Amino acid sequence: MASDLVLYSYWRSSAAFRVRIALNLKGLHYETRAVHLVRDGGEQHSAAYAALNPQELVPTLVDGERVLTQSMAILEYLDETHPQPPLLPTDQAGKAHVRALSQVIACDVHPLGNLRVLQQIGTQFGADDEQKAAWMRHWVSAGLHAFETMLAKSKYTGRYCHGDTPGMADVCLVPQVYNARRWKVPLGDYPNILRIDAACAAQQAFHDAMPEQQPDAPSPSV
Amino acid sequence: MASDLVLYSYWRSSAAFRVRIALNLKGLHYETRAVHLVRDGGEQHSAAYAALNPQELVPTLVDGERVLTQSMAILEYLDETHPQPPLLPTDQAGKAHVRALSQVIACDVHPLGNLRVLQQIGTQFGADDEQKAAWMRHWVSAGLHAFETMLAKSKYTGRYCHGDTPGMADVCLVPQVYNARRWKVPLGDYPNILRIDAACAAQQAFHDAMPEQQPDAPSPSV
Repeated sequence: MASDLVLYSYWRSSAAFRVRIALNLKGLHYETRAVHLVRDGGEQHSAAYAALNPQELVPTLVDGERVLTQSMAILEYLDETHPQPPLLPTDQAGKAHVRALSQVIACDVHPLGNLRVLQQIGTQFGADDEQKAAWMRHWVSAGLHAFETMLAKSKYTGRYCHGDTPGMADVCLVPQVYNARRWKVPLGDYPNILRIDAACAAQQAFHDAMPEQQPDAPSPSV
Repeated sequence: MASDLVLYSYWRSSAAFRVRIALNLKGLHYETRAVHLVRDGGEQHSAAYAALNPQELVPTLVDGERVLTQSMAILEYLDETHPQPPLLPTDQAGKAHVRALSQVIACDVHPLGNLRVLQQIGTQFGADDEQKAAWMRHWVSAGLHAFETMLAKSKYTGRYCHGDTPGMADVCLVPQVYNARRWKVPLGDYPNILRIDAACAAQQAFHDAMPEQQPDAPSPSV
């Protein structure tokens, strides 16, 4: 069945992962079009994809005639066009708190460790795999430490980052925790994060958005 | 006169600069408390400041009993609590476009070049000043190139990034252009950006938010 919503995605992209979770939470059907970020020098650099997304990054969401880029802008858009269930609380202070948590990850953790940055520290500074891993651990640990502190001191923290239903901050947190595990970042000091990550993992919307569940994920090695 | 709004700021921080512009556009009086990011190893790492902002970054905006962090969350908060003049358009597609432009800078340019990242490439990879400048030019050029392309192809682009009044995308753009000039990033290929930056510079709200206008800016050398 054709869908009005088309998501240009890569299975392991944290930013695409966020949008997949949000689409699933909203119960929206969408078609995945895979953009392989590594093969052939990166399919995101093709002329056809660059015409959709001038940053040559994933994700891009196409909603009919609208071409939407930047995952956090897409989450806000989905919450405005499909308000139920909400990704943000209704009160001003709560919204500011959830957006701040989200942006700890979206602005200050994820951008420092995505593929193009790891490629750049390799090219410019000759970083090898171990140095790239140390770089990742440095930024992910700093961000998750702050995130955990914010959760621990907030009156809003519940079963999820804000209250007892998943929302925007959870949508940002889960892909970052997935990524942290991939890079073997120690997580033992973050009990709230681990607890919330586990609560999310039990939700179908999060499970179905996991990298390994995507049509472009490689088959498991045997 | 005491103010209910207190901004913890550093004169040259792009993220604090954004919030200063927004406060000025909204006509809001605020008290500046300077946090010197370099002196004494960085005042943002003091226990008192870390209690306000667990990321130990500027800005933090205190609004009465509310402690707000993350500049983009603060912009959204100010737009909700003080709607006039608006930082975002009213239509869904326009809002998504303005937020995407804003996040090109807030998520994919600025975080890669702030002080802590430049310190880290120095510490971890031994980058000297010239290598730090090359790193900055790489990321700022990539981001501004995409931003210019998005402006050039959008039906929304006017005297400012969206139409003929300044808004959230301009609030993000101007500090990044200031930063680009500081690092001598060539800007000749970005005619829309230069035109909009000049239009903003003529506005009092932007002028008063400039780093050199801040109480914590160093005196000019003679």
